Amino acid sequence: MDMLWSGWGDPARAQPLPDTVAGLLRDLLGVQPRGTRPVTLAEIPVPPSSLPPAALRSLSAAVGGGEHVRTDAETRIRHTRGKSTPDLLRIRDGDVDDVPAAVVLPAGHDEVLAVLRTCAQHHLALVPFGGGTSVVGGLTPGRRSAFVALDLRRMDRLLALDPVSRTATLQPGLRAPQAEELLAAHGFTLGHFPQSYEWATIGGFAATRSSGQASAGYGRFDEMVLGLTLATPEGTLDTGRAPRSAAGPDLRQLILGSEGAFGVITSVTVRIRPVPQFRRYEGWHFASFADGTAALRRLAQDGPRPTVLRLSDETETLVGLAQPDALGTSPAPRPDGLPSAREADGSSSPPRPDGCTAVAGFEGTEEDTAYRRDRAAEILRDCGGTPLGAEPGRRWAHGRYTTPYLRDSLLDAGAFVETLETAAFWSRVPGLYAAVREALTATLTEAGTPPLVMCHISHVYENGASLYFTVVSAQGDEPVAHWTPAKHAANDAILAAGGTISHHHGVGTDHRDWYVREAGALGADALRAVKRRLDPAGLLNPGVLLPAD
Amino acid sequence: MDMLWSGWGDPARAQPLPDTVAGLLRDLLGVQPRGTRPVTLAEIPVPPSSLPPAALRSLSAAVGGGEHVRTDAETRIRHTRGKSTPDLLRIRDGDVDDVPAAVVLPAGHDEVLAVLRTCAQHHLALVPFGGGTSVVGGLTPGRRSAFVALDLRRMDRLLALDPVSRTATLQPGLRAPQAEELLAAHGFTLGHFPQSYEWATIGGFAATRSSGQASAGYGRFDEMVLGLTLATPEGTLDTGRAPRSAAGPDLRQLILGSEGAFGVITSVTVRIRPVPQFRRYEGWHFASFADGTAALRRLAQDGPRPTVLRLSDETETLVGLAQPDALGTSPAPRPDGLPSAREADGSSSPPRPDGCTAVAGFEGTEEDTAYRRDRAAEILRDCGGTPLGAEPGRRWAHGRYTTPYLRDSLLDAGAFVETLETAAFWSRVPGLYAAVREALTATLTEAGTPPLVMCHISHVYENGASLYFTVVSAQGDEPVAHWTPAKHAANDAILAAGGTISHHHGVGTDHRDWYVREAGALGADALRAVKRRLDPAGLLNPGVLLPAD
Repeated sequence: MDMLWSGWGDPARAQPLPDTVAGLLRDLLGVQPRGTRPVTLAEIPVPPSSLPPAALRSLSAAVGGGEHVRTDAETRIRHTRGKSTPDLLRIRDGDVDDVPAAVVLPAGHDEVLAVLRTCAQHHLALVPFGGGTSVVGGLTPGRRSAFVALDLRRMDRLLALDPVSRTATLQPGLRAPQAEELLAAHGFTLGHFPQSYEWATIGGFAATRSSGQASAGYGRFDEMVLGLTLATPEGTLDTGRAPRSAAGPDLRQLILGSEGAFGVITSVTVRIRPVPQFRRYEGWHFASFADGTAALRRLAQDGPRPTVLRLSDETETLVGLAQPDALGTSPAPRPDGLPSAREADGSSSPPRPDGCTAVAGFEGTEEDTAYRRDRAAEILRDCGGTPLGAEPGRRWAHGRYTTPYLRDSLLDAGAFVETLETAAFWSRVPGLYAAVREALTATLTEAGTPPLVMCHISHVYENGASLYFTVVSAQGDEPVAHWTPAKHAANDAILAAGGTISHHHGVGTDHRDWYVREAGALGADALRAVKRRLDPAGLLNPGVLLPAD
Repeated sequence: MDMLWSGWGDPARAQPLPDTVAGLLRDLLGVQPRGTRPVTLAEIPVPPSSLPPAALRSLSAAVGGGEHVRTDAETRIRHTRGKSTPDLLRIRDGDVDDVPAAVVLPAGHDEVLAVLRTCAQHHLALVPFGGGTSVVGGLTPGRRSAFVALDLRRMDRLLALDPVSRTATLQPGLRAPQAEELLAAHGFTLGHFPQSYEWATIGGFAATRSSGQASAGYGRFDEMVLGLTLATPEGTLDTGRAPRSAAGPDLRQLILGSEGAFGVITSVTVRIRPVPQFRRYEGWHFASFADGTAALRRLAQDGPRPTVLRLSDETETLVGLAQPDALGTSPAPRPDGLPSAREADGSSSPPRPDGCTAVAGFEGTEEDTAYRRDRAAEILRDCGGTPLGAEPGRRWAHGRYTTPYLRDSLLDAGAFVETLETAAFWSRVPGLYAAVREALTATLTEAGTPPLVMCHISHVYENGASLYFTVVSAQGDEPVAHWTPAKHAANDAILAAGGTISHHHGVGTDHRDWYVREAGALGADALRAVKRRLDPAGLLNPGVLLPAD
């Protein structure tokens, strides 16, 4: 099935906003219904493909026939940009400036190499396309000449499974649920469940260093990767002969996070684990985000480590985003530190937040799960936590892939909603949290649309944690232009407070300039040197990750 | 204290060979006492330093005075090559072909940058020198022009310690015991205990991706590193703003394992852990190396994970190398599958190996250690293990840094002894084990010196393990030339059997050609592109890691 071209996921699973939420948006944030409706697919003025006939013939030959090279308007629209809120706003407005000239579907590594050769001959740029779920402009090449989208969906096989070593070799176009199904037939799981799980692909996870909701137990995707094959314009790079090695710099770590700028990932060898026999997710209440953060830190540092560990701040807890199924049933907060629209109207103030909800989930054998859960429960109590039982855990697990659907309904209702994320060492987490909230709140308030800023910690390490922010406000007249200064202010605040520009969304084009600041001029230059060696003509995802030459 | 110039460690701690061992070497391996004694320090014909006076003045200015630039013979001899057996054989023969023109001792990052500028001006190559313990030719630049050794011993401070994030920033010249002492004052440990522990440095651990004997619990050194600062001829590279990030390829992983070829590591931020309250090391017996390997794999994959986990094969168990203190007290085996010298003489055959010894050690809180130990003991029993109690664990821990001392005595006695190591995915471990043994045995036997080949597993992962081989034989007339074909055959066998050319010793010059085969031409070229950007004149450790341009 294809994803909704103008939004998220399966159109049949759209999540209409409860009336209470629509009312709250109006009263709290001043959200007004949009005056215009989004365009329909048929209304979008897609220019004819600029692909020269000779290039079309070569590409068709490279992928075994013309049926695997698509130039029709709908296919090209469906491969235009990713799924950030600005991406959705643009496509809903019919803006197809970034439309590919063609969509090419290779069946394997050798066909990818052949497509790369063809692109080099015909001076075409190429954007690798997995699930199309980038939220950082990773599918929007900066170069304005013609480019092809390389859709990897035909490369969706399990190539090898080694039950002794517990490794599997997967093709990049496999979506995560398909991959889980193939592994489950052998009793194994990957354990990678990001919010994009239902649509994102194995190759995309590797190219962007994805991190899933069970990262406390299964690790990040980049920690699962044991080997990668990369097809580049200059040939093939094969990596990963052992779990760990002292044979030089780790070339796998040069490919992970390269976001299609160095080559096309054509196979990924991953660590797999037995399907857990037992799952137990529970909710915990903490008096404050600071208290909850200290509790998470203690589990991350001293164990026992849960499989899932997350903590919503006061605002996110109150809004109920931690359990999207229950959204709208809690009383809502006012925007951060600001009078709400209702207050401005003289209405009464909504109740203040009164604490935070955490979810701690354990998976494994029954015995091990029980031991870890009981020890963790002792520690969480010791840190001031109050158990809320299984219901919040169940609700979180049930609604875990629902939130992106809500965004479409919020956009329809005239609200703006976007997420962004970072990570830092534990001692910097409180300052980073405050700085990003402040940057978003100040910028959007100054622009006349005071936001609601929510946050959670969803990935913990011994030495630090991620922070994931959700921002809701009125759209403003030109929503993308309205949001851009707030996003830039948040990026600046992240770097100033010692965070990384992305914990798991990646760099794309949206974070590129901040990434270069984070890596430093010399670090960025070292990567540019690698790119020039692997992709001398600069065909691959120009402007993504690094500035185009 | 300086290490013995012609061998290992503190001269006062020399380990004389028991007479029984000397007898066994003669009877089993045909080892004959050497006809010549090693040279003395004073006898070595060190040529005068070729450093031009202008360069000497510039270097002195770069490091705050002439007392930090040494050109005397003894200092230069002490910085000639590392501590592989060929290195020792060469220096014991008075071969100082690879002597540096000067030894320079910078006090900090800025002085390192100044030294690099001076080297660029005067066309001097530079070899970073930490503990000098490389066993892979990592201190032997391939270029025959003058070079300086950059001894980092003055950079031995703890720069920062963050108890909340549990991170510490260390200077590269800190030796491991000093680092542990500085951290222990705050209640923390690094948990990195390689065999070179007493002499090796923090910078060297990072540059070579060292792995310690407690890697099952504390991880490899490259897994402990959260940030690095690199001084290069083109400026400074600073990495590590968060434990994990999706901001592009991981630049830390490009510096780790770069072996001084990309720059000089001037600070390392590492994960630290509380000093364990409790330690419990125990021995286990398995009927065969295969049985023991299966048991280790089960613990590595399903847990609970010990802190230390190692398994000696039948030969190593019988020789008793697992407990160096007890060396010579067991009956000895014959060389692999070959008649021993005694058998060839018509003497009776020594007893066959009858099983393997493993050590499983647990560190942590008393409660957690007890839980993990008891669960692990169940599993080890279930896998056919028989508990041997605390004595083998105690003996292993007591003798863990002793083995390198034995090498000096073995060389004195006319024996040749060397180690090499690799790693692979679990399913390839048995084939790799057989192939390396066979390569070493066949090559040395053909050369007239049938060896004793011993092996242990000392680093385990979910998906694979390391193999560490020790080879003992007679020296042959020209010991280095005698050994070289065996080493090359072992390297070839490692690659052919799917292993990595090094799990924790590194690449240096000895593994370079096999490393390039492992990385592939394009992978090696990508790294060469990085080197050219950071070190355009090729000053840094030329010929180490990658072929000199």
